[in-house]
Order: sequence, then structure tokens, then C-alpha cells
Amino acid sequence: RRLFLQIDHFGFDENGTFQQRYLVADQHWKKDNGPILFYTGNEGDIEWFCNNTGFMWDVAEELNAMLVFAEHRYYGESLPFGNESFSDSKHLNYLTSEQALADFAVLVEYLKTTIAGAKHSPVIAIGGSYGGMLAAWFRMKYPHVVVGALAASAPIWQFGDLVPCGTFFSIVTNDFRKSGKGCSESIRNSWNAINHLSSTDAGLQWLSNTFHLCSPLKTPQDAAVLKNWLSETWVNLAMVNYPYKADFLQPLPAWPIQEVCKFLKDPSLSDKLLLQNVFQAVNLYYNYTGEASCLDVSQTATKSLGEMGWYYQACTEMVMPLCTDGVHDMFEPQKWDFDALSEECYRMWGVRPRLSWILSMYGGKNISSHSNIIFSNGGLDPWSAGGVTQNVTDSLVAVVIPDGAHHLDLRSRNPLDPKSVQQARAMEICLMKEWIEKARHSH
Amino acid sequence: RRLFLQIDHFGFDENGTFQQRYLVADQHWKKDNGPILFYTGNEGDIEWFCNNTGFMWDVAEELNAMLVFAEHRYYGESLPFGNESFSDSKHLNYLTSEQALADFAVLVEYLKTTIAGAKHSPVIAIGGSYGGMLAAWFRMKYPHVVVGALAASAPIWQFGDLVPCGTFFSIVTNDFRKSGKGCSESIRNSWNAINHLSSTDAGLQWLSNTFHLCSPLKTPQDAAVLKNWLSETWVNLAMVNYPYKADFLQPLPAWPIQEVCKFLKDPSLSDKLLLQNVFQAVNLYYNYTGEASCLDVSQTATKSLGEMGWYYQACTEMVMPLCTDGVHDMFEPQKWDFDALSEECYRMWGVRPRLSWILSMYGGKNISSHSNIIFSNGGLDPWSAGGVTQNVTDSLVAVVIPDGAHHLDLRSRNPLDPKSVQQARAMEICLMKEWIEKARHSH
Repeated sequence: RRLFLQIDHFGFDENGTFQQRYLVADQHWKKDNGPILFYTGNEGDIEWFCNNTGFMWDVAEELNAMLVFAEHRYYGESLPFGNESFSDSKHLNYLTSEQALADFAVLVEYLKTTIAGAKHSPVIAIGGSYGGMLAAWFRMKYPHVVVGALAASAPIWQFGDLVPCGTFFSIVTNDFRKSGKGCSESIRNSWNAINHLSSTDAGLQWLSNTFHLCSPLKTPQDAAVLKNWLSETWVNLAMVNYPYKADFLQPLPAWPIQEVCKFLKDPSLSDKLLLQNVFQAVNLYYNYTGEASCLDVSQTATKSLGEMGWYYQACTEMVMPLCTDGVHDMFEPQKWDFDALSEECYRMWGVRPRLSWILSMYGGKNISSHSNIIFSNGGLDPWSAGGVTQNVTDSLVAVVIPDGAHHLDLRSRNPLDPKSVQQARAMEICLMKEWIEKARHSH
Repeated sequence: RRLFLQIDHFGFDENGTFQQRYLVADQHWKKDNGPILFYTGNEGDIEWFCNNTGFMWDVAEELNAMLVFAEHRYYGESLPFGNESFSDSKHLNYLTSEQALADFAVLVEYLKTTIAGAKHSPVIAIGGSYGGMLAAWFRMKYPHVVVGALAASAPIWQFGDLVPCGTFFSIVTNDFRKSGKGCSESIRNSWNAINHLSSTDAGLQWLSNTFHLCSPLKTPQDAAVLKNWLSETWVNLAMVNYPYKADFLQPLPAWPIQEVCKFLKDPSLSDKLLLQNVFQAVNLYYNYTGEASCLDVSQTATKSLGEMGWYYQACTEMVMPLCTDGVHDMFEPQKWDFDALSEECYRMWGVRPRLSWILSMYGGKNISSHSNIIFSNGGLDPWSAGGVTQNVTDSLVAVVIPDGAHHLDLRSRNPLDPKSVQQARAMEICLMKEWIEKARHSH
């Protein structure tokens, strides 16, 4: 379904509208003001999120709930200026979290006034990752619209200096360390191996062949691209280190890091032997189905994610400081460099990031006057570094899932689910029922 | 003092800054995290508000508080584009309540981080009228920035269909009815008298002379201007019907409506005699000092108010439905006509008002999940029609001042203050102390 929304909620000079896509499933909904579970779409195609948020489908019947999945502007089919949406900073100007939240608010109010029997339906925001941040912020900024929020794996504190910039990568490293002997050390040693080989043309050629790259590396600078791509791959593996076969960012086996680590047992191998093993490891991530004829260093995850849009957001509001030191983590040391980011963003989009705005807007760690938000985080998930992992108040509740990766709790129930995620979901459902009950009584 | 702020907090294409003016008085401030009373400036020069908010000066010592008065963008000297600020809808695009609140949030955070000893100072937002709305909304949207808000005479419900559109003018009418026999009836009868006279050139001439108009009426349409001006005058008198000599919108005697009504005792007079009395009445409002050589129908209040800016805001976000029926009020019947407003706004500014946006943004009547806001209203004040006059929750408290006009409580203490405003202020101080104490304990 589609709703026409203002392109600019916060100004009146641009009075155009665009069509926001949203999906509705109401087969389990109790028409007499039954609750609405509202997925606050994040940086991708909403159908993809809809298909990867089985939790909502699993609980719909128990809660007599309607499910709504709202697509985030500038992603999927919700493009304010169609094909022109990413053409320049003028067209991108309306891609902010504030505009997205305003879209959600107007959409919820539209649904409640137009769907018969929904006038007093309590609405609960649910989201994962950036969508989880949006769910939490939605409750903070529009508590008259949603009675509560489930913010899964939402790193709302991965901003400014709220958390150390290095924790993220040390969690990734821990995941690999725990998944096989020699695994994180092999990866740590791989960077220098690449550096050695990429200093000669023959070495670059060898790397291109060994990694089955679709476009061969041509200059030593291309080695940086290869290393970035590998780093992102390890991060992605940490995010999707699920206990069962799954297809989120890529089709993968159960506990994929354990599988990957089977190739990375001996960190003391020579450069070439080590990197041949690294290839085996990443090949498992990119080619588990065996369908890839070559590996593309410009792509690390599903195409359902809107990379352009997210790149712009990371260049404006969503500035999340990250760093590595090679000691507490298995990556090449890299300091957090805001100025370099700012320059890159200006070159790329003609805009500069604003470091402190998101803190001014959403309060940083001072969120205790809000209520009815569940922050769930997986212990295996690097994004838990910036998450809320301890209760802030009685009604800002942290749920930690020690053996969960990125928003495992939002995925469908699975026989291989660890106990911890089952308990987390039970807790989440219990709190949501409380919110619904309380909202019912206030009418 | 001045602080550079983003012209557009909600987009990154316009990356310019402007200087926001703010005033600071810290002679009574306790440096060890003493509280800050923060006036959320409204539609005018901040010096003028500073001089008309004696309450803050009166309580500074008792609370050991620093006073800060922040000027609203596009008013006074805080013009984002200097003289160009009102030139077209492009330059006016950043004149919204959301941008103003963001200015305030960034300013408060700047003050707390740059003033030694203010890091943990609890900040209380205080404002009157539109500034009162901003104070309430500031607490609602940025509870991490302000621990509470005193929203004096803030008609946050004068939007959409939250309250009947006619109450405003019936309160004005009541003020006149209670202030002298025949008074409201005289005014009610004056409209037809003007209609009769303005139908001939001689009548227009007579009206221009009788009302000492600076520019004479030329066409029957000009009579509408005269009537609007008179209506606004009666409204303004209701707003500033203070119990002592004051100079807010105009210099005036104590209980000015009683003074005005002394000229309006006989509603049954002939048209000309009636209107001569009406002139005496408005002349008291416009010429109490005796300095005006003629009356200007284009001006109804102090020039410290930014009429251009407010006109634009009333044409975009701040759409407050008002209407009269001539029965429950003393005005010519006039239905609320959104379409006419929209056309006028489009002609004037090239923008169209959005009726429901402010409700979506600030929650309309669904504000119960917020906390620590005092809504004070005067029983004589027409704006109390859209105010919160009953407690919403234990911490959203309504304070009613039956014999108070427009934010009388924010004015300096005066020997002629009625008991009710003294009690209101005592209650306000008590609650503010509670907020401050609670904030202190959380550190």
C-alpha cells in the first residue's frame, strides 16, 4: 500500500509529496482496537525486512495484532524524487531520521483514523539495528503515537564519545577467537600478508587470482579496498552469526563463524598459504550456494540494503565513531578520523557530517525521562557495543542475549534457538502485553 | 550575547549558520550547579520579553538561579538572513517551531558545557503565550535538556478541533460584559453602525475623522479593515486587562477594560453617537499617553512584536481556528474558513498552512506520557480557551488564575496583584523547587 506524505515535514517551501510504501497483515487482528505492531523500516527494501522479522509474524496471533511494515523514505520503492532522489544534496536533503519519524507518525495516525476499529488501537514500534534506533526514538519523540517500542540491536549510544570507539571491533574479534583456535590470529596476520604481496604487480595479480576477484587489483592502493572488503566481511559474519542456517545478508550455514574458522586454524603459515585460507573463509560467506563465479569487492551484503542512502546518512546524522588498535582486536590499527570522514563526505555528497546533532536531538545517555522501551542486544553482535545493555529505569529495560548475534530476537522462532533468545522473546512479549493492557485501561 | 547556530537543523544542504541573540543574568546564580531559568523566546524582540517577565527576576534570588532569555529565530536581532529573512518563502523556510526548539536545545547544551559550574545545572523552560507553547513543547521533545517547563497562557490546544473555535471570543466578550453595564452590547451594536456609515463616501469621511485615522478610509472595503482593527483592539484589551497600570502591548491604566467601558454605557445610541464613544474607548488604548496625533489601523500592539514573522507562522504551522457568532460573543459573525486562510497565505507567502501537522508533532490532547509541565492560565485571558486548565496527570499540572489576564503570573510582583496570581506563583515556585531538588538528587 502507499500513502502520500510531505517530502518536507519541517519546512513549507517544498510542498511536494511522495508515496511511502507500507505493508499490512491483519489476519490475526482483533478489530475492536486490537494492537498494531509497527515496524519502523530502516535502510532497505521493506519487503526484505518484512521477510526477516519473523518474530512479528510469530506473535501476531497471540497478541491479536495487526502488523504494519513501513518503508523508510529513500529506500526500496519510497523514493521522494524517483530516480533523481540521490542525484545531489538538494534532492537528498530530506533523508534524515527526523523526517522518517515524522513519516511514521503521520502514517500511524492515518491508519488509526481510516481503519475501522483501529481508533484506539495501541501501537507498538518494533525495529532492528537502525530501525531499532528509529523505534526507540519514535517512542521518545512521539509517545502520543506509540505506547512503547522494541528496539532490537539498536546502537543508540554509538555516537559522540558515549562509548569507546574500539569496542565494536573487539566484539567481532572475540566472536572469531571463541569460534576456533588460531582464527582471530590468522585474520590479524592476514593484513601484513596482503601488504607484502600488494607491493608488487605480481603480488597484486596473485591476490586477484587467489581471491577470484571480478575486477583485478591494479595498484597498491587497491589493496586497501581488498582489506576494507575483508574487514566488512568479518564484521558482517559477526552480525549474522546465527545458530541455524539463514539467509540475511548472505545465505549461510549455522554458526557461520565456526565454519569460517575451520579454514583459519594456523596463523603461522606463510603469506600465500595464509591468504589462500582467508579466501576459503570469505568464499564461504560470499559463495555458500556455489553460484558466484567471482567475488566483487564492492558488495558485502544483500542488495536489498540501500547502500547509497546509508552512505549519505552516515555522512550527515549517523556518524558512528569506530576504531581499531590491532591489539584488542584483529584488525589493522586505524584511529577514528572525523576530519577525513568530513572531507570524504563533502567530496562525495557536498555535505558535512554534524557530530553532536544526534546527541542534542535524541539525548545521548540522558534518556531516563522516557518510558516503555525495550533495548535488546546480542552478546555476539558488534553493535551491542553502542547498545543499551543495562536497565536505565523500570520502564527502559535492557534485554541481553549472550549467544545472540544482530537482532536474533526479531527472527522467526527456530528449533535451534538458544535458550537465551527464547527467554528474551518471552520477556519482550510480556512487556508488550503490559503496555497494551495499560493502554486499554486508559480508555 | 550571540551564538552561531545552524540555519537548518533538519537538513544538510543548507549548512549556513546565523547568530542567535540571548541575554544572561547571573548575579544570583549559585555557581555549584545552581539552576538555570531559560526563557523560550517567542515572536518578538527578546529584550522586550526580558523586560516583561519580571517573575523570573523576582525568583532568581530565591532559587539561586541564572536567567537566560533566548531570542526566537526570525525575531528581534536573530535574523537568519539579515534583511533578506522575510523576502520570500525560500528564506522563510527555516521559521518553524521545530527549528526554534532545536536552537534552544543547542544553546542550553552550549551554555552547560561552556559556563564553569553549570555542567549539571538543572534547566527549567519558562515562556508565555507562544513562548509558553514552546516551553511546554521543549520539555516534551527535549526532556534531556530541561527538567521541567512553566508554560504560561500557552494555548497548545487552540489547534485542529481540540477546542470550540468560538470560546476565545466569548471570553473577550465576558471580560467586557463584566466590566461595565452596556459595554459589550455597545460594541456588538457598533459593527452595524460602521456598516451603515461606510456605505457612503460621506460616511467613510466621517468615520476617518471621528476615529482620527492616519490614512482615511476610501472604499466600503476599507470598513472591513477598520472593523478588524477594532476587533483586535478589544482582543488585545482582554489580553492585557491587568489589575495595575502597565505597558505591555500599549501603556494602559489599571483594569483598562473598566476604563474603556466607561465610554460604552449606552448601546442604544444613534450610530454616530455610539461610534464617537467607541472612538473614545479605543483612543484610551492607543493614546493613553496622549502622544498619538492620529490612529493607525495597521498597528494594534507594540512594535517589539514581529508581525511579519508571526503572520508567516500563522500561515504555516500555527493555524489556530477562531470564529464568532455574534450571539455568544459581541463580534460580527464569522465562520472559521480554512480555505480562505490557505488562499491568503498562498498569495502572501507562497506557502499553504498544514492544519494537522502541529497535532501530529506535539500530540494534541494526548500528552499524558510527558511530565513536569505547569500550564498556567488566566480566567480573563481569551487564550485560556485553548489552554490546559485541568491537571492532565500528577506532573502535568494546570494552574488557573481566575482574575488574571494574559500570563499575568510572569509579570513582576505588584502590590495590586490579586490573591489568585500570588497563589499561582507560589505553586509554580514550589513545583520548580521540586524539579530542581529531584535533579540534584539524581547526581
